[in-house]
Amino acid sequence: MPSMIILGIDPGFATIGYGVISVENGKVRAVDYGVIKTPKENTFPERLVMIEKGVNLLIDKFLPDEIALEELFFNTNITTGINVAHARGVIVSTCYKKCQRLFEYTPLQIKQALTGYGRAEKKQIQAMTTSLLGLAKLPRPDDAADALAVALTHANTNRFSSSFGIK
Amino acid sequence: MPSMIILGIDPGFATIGYGVISVENGKVRAVDYGVIKTPKENTFPERLVMIEKGVNLLIDKFLPDEIALEELFFNTNITTGINVAHARGVIVSTCYKKCQRLFEYTPLQIKQALTGYGRAEKKQIQAMTTSLLGLAKLPRPDDAADALAVALTHANTNRFSSSFGIK
Repeated sequence: MPSMIILGIDPGFATIGYGVISVENGKVRAVDYGVIKTPKENTFPERLVMIEKGVNLLIDKFLPDEIALEELFFNTNITTGINVAHARGVIVSTCYKKCQRLFEYTPLQIKQALTGYGRAEKKQIQAMTTSLLGLAKLPRPDDAADALAVALTHANTNRFSSSFGIK
Repeated sequence: MPSMIILGIDPGFATIGYGVISVENGKVRAVDYGVIKTPKENTFPERLVMIEKGVNLLIDKFLPDEIALEELFFNTNITTGINVAHARGVIVSTCYKKCQRLFEYTPLQIKQALTGYGRAEKKQIQAMTTSLLGLAKLPRPDDAADALAVALTHANTNRFSSSFGIK
């Protein structure tokens, strides 16, 4: 089976996590991970355009076969949530224009895929991510680790079930 | 004073209202208005890309000098609100790439600008929009009327105060 590149994205407005993994013969490997940051000195529309450019650069650099996004988790801070939703719209649209194999996973699906347990804590997810990818230490920052986790979730889900697009 | 073209947009996910007005020597005129619709048969990312294309077509057709957007009003339906925020992110980013003179107004600012009264009802706003633009009848659908109202708000605000960008 040829190698497949999966780009995982943890959507955000100030910080967007990304994680790139390769899957070959059922073996996963971390290719790269990190974050895109948008400075708060910039205006709202400037930051959205920065996000678009950053995501486009990632796709052009790593040429993913498939992209997996974390679904929006609406926390108690509604203002942050609205900003993230604006950013996520830009991310979804930007990804889709370059790669129609776009998938999304809820935090619950990510927990279940990586630990088999829907109430797993963040630490457990990060430990599993580190272990599955054979990394020497926990990937940092958290947003990058989250992005690797959603990429791994997609790799696992893909192996066992049929894929589905974002509705 | 040369004519200025203002594009007003009422952001949405299923229906995006637009209204184009010209301002010349303090006189406002409706150039065009209508809606962009995204069919629910399409996937979420497809609809976001349709919104981007639709907004780009509008800007390329009417070449606005300035663009005014209605701020997100978060109603009781949080799912609809999240979809609109995704769409609005795409709209802001798309507009900003073509026209950096981008402004936003809250529903309260629109009501105050058009009727001088922050608790004005939708009907009053629509009646003022129709009257200020000298239209023979109420613009339809509501989303298009709302978009004309935000364009008019911008035209009025511009005349009396300094402009400000989206933060």
